[in-house]
Amino acid sequence: MQIFLDCIPCFIRQALDAARLSTDDKQIHEKVVRDVIILAKDLDMSQSPPVMGQKIHRLIRKLAGTEDPYIDVKKQFNNAALQLYSKMRTYIIESKDMLETAIRLAIAGNIIDFGVNSKLKESELEKTISECLAAEFPDMQLKPFQQAINEAEEILYIADNAGEIIFDRLLIEQLPIEKVTVVVKGSPVINDATMEDAVLAGLPQIVNVIDNGSDGPGTILETCSEAFVNRFEEADLVIAKGQGNYETLSDVDKNIFFVLKAKCPVIARDLECEVGEMIFRKSKTFRNAVDLMKEAE
Amino acid sequence: MQIFLDCIPCFIRQALDAARLSTDDKQIHEKVVRDVIILAKDLDMSQSPPVMGQKIHRLIRKLAGTEDPYIDVKKQFNNAALQLYSKMRTYIIESKDMLETAIRLAIAGNIIDFGVNSKLKESELEKTISECLAAEFPDMQLKPFQQAINEAEEILYIADNAGEIIFDRLLIEQLPIEKVTVVVKGSPVINDATMEDAVLAGLPQIVNVIDNGSDGPGTILETCSEAFVNRFEEADLVIAKGQGNYETLSDVDKNIFFVLKAKCPVIARDLECEVGEMIFRKSKTFRNAVDLMKEAE
Repeated sequence: MQIFLDCIPCFIRQALDAARLSTDDKQIHEKVVRDVIILAKDLDMSQSPPVMGQKIHRLIRKLAGTEDPYIDVKKQFNNAALQLYSKMRTYIIESKDMLETAIRLAIAGNIIDFGVNSKLKESELEKTISECLAAEFPDMQLKPFQQAINEAEEILYIADNAGEIIFDRLLIEQLPIEKVTVVVKGSPVINDATMEDAVLAGLPQIVNVIDNGSDGPGTILETCSEAFVNRFEEADLVIAKGQGNYETLSDVDKNIFFVLKAKCPVIARDLECEVGEMIFRKSKTFRNAVDLMKEAE
Repeated sequence: MQIFLDCIPCFIRQALDAARLSTDDKQIHEKVVRDVIILAKDLDMSQSPPVMGQKIHRLIRKLAGTEDPYIDVKKQFNNAALQLYSKMRTYIIESKDMLETAIRLAIAGNIIDFGVNSKLKESELEKTISECLAAEFPDMQLKPFQQAINEAEEILYIADNAGEIIFDRLLIEQLPIEKVTVVVKGSPVINDATMEDAVLAGLPQIVNVIDNGSDGPGTILETCSEAFVNRFEEADLVIAKGQGNYETLSDVDKNIFFVLKAKCPVIARDLECEVGEMIFRKSKTFRNAVDLMKEAE
């Protein structure tokens, strides 16, 4: 997905939010805003929005002199999610369709997105869980998803944020875990999950976990490690979590299921849905096994 | 009130909204955003936000090649307000305190602010009227206001927006009209009221109406006509309507009552109130007749 004009004020607002979270120094806040304006002046609108996000958050970390401004927020929401884990697991076990319930919960976890909302309160988690369990879900494509899982040999689950990764664990537990590799960021950016968060979620005990070698929000393939890009190319199914992964991978020719809560009006417009809606959608170029066999002939 | 960092993304968002309202040409939308970014790059933060607003809206009118992009919106809300006029007048006549009810209604009319919300629907007017009639109003200073009106010899009522000016008429009718001069903008900016709107509200039949000679939102004294500035200096009481007038006059040494709905978080912070609250507040340097007599001695 490309950058839209509406993204530009949002970049500056996000940068200011992040600068305030990183330091109380008002001079640095102003310097961040002024430097982001300079970045915006020569913006290439054909890039995906996270390319700008990567530049902004590099700038903030440098100016604020901190490697990980979101470290406390990540800890807080990891803990909050861990406390909800057993309860959510019970919801899944007691539900009619365990896979569907796990997908709904994974999407609920996507509310923990400090790029979109830096004022999120822990108390909003349970409310979002209830909403996501009860909401209409026109986008739910359970059968094609089950078929894709069965057909795949290598599944990449590209995680999004800390805290949210505990919710992801619930969905991962419903997948054929021997096929699954979970991907986290190479180094901190916003509240995106890194290896530390995956370990805290207990993921390495049940699946393979790798990092993408990048500090970009979403999956900016050009800035990821060669090792990750190879794994991405080899995988026959990708589950891409959250807005950043949708923004960066929506135009990539690959079998991807995008799993997210559409929280921003620009992304909602791109997805032709309402803000707040749950999204569980195949990539435009998604091909099932039959298509792929035909192409191989 | 000075420009805060939070105003900068808001300027760009407002500019994009206004550009879209002015033309369907997407190249002009992008040109507007890029030019506003250039303006923001060298922004003097000690100015009041409407100084930037004036520059932005001059730019949009020039690039879109239209003198008054908001002409349709102004007509629409003038008509909508006119249709509500008799009903609102009845509310006032039947109320316990006619002046207080008229103030509440004048504040309700301040919702018609296309700088803040370019997506306002006519249907929101009646809802806002009901809310403003019923809401707690801790800021209401009826007695000091009545005293100031009685003491004053020349009252300037600085109007804000088209549509809203019909609501203002209801408050003006409760004032000693022989002392009142209503002020409108010299030429179009956003949906601010000009002489045409004052005429449509029937104001010249009941009070003196002048324009301020400026195309700035609010009252940017430096860009107003000499004739207006003289009237402003001579007046012993100013009633300043809406956010723009608060932003531009809050630091001016003058007897002013600010009458508005706080719709933006930055202004709400400056006023130490919640977003959405009704504001009816004396300027910091407000002096009553006794103070003024002491000063003259």
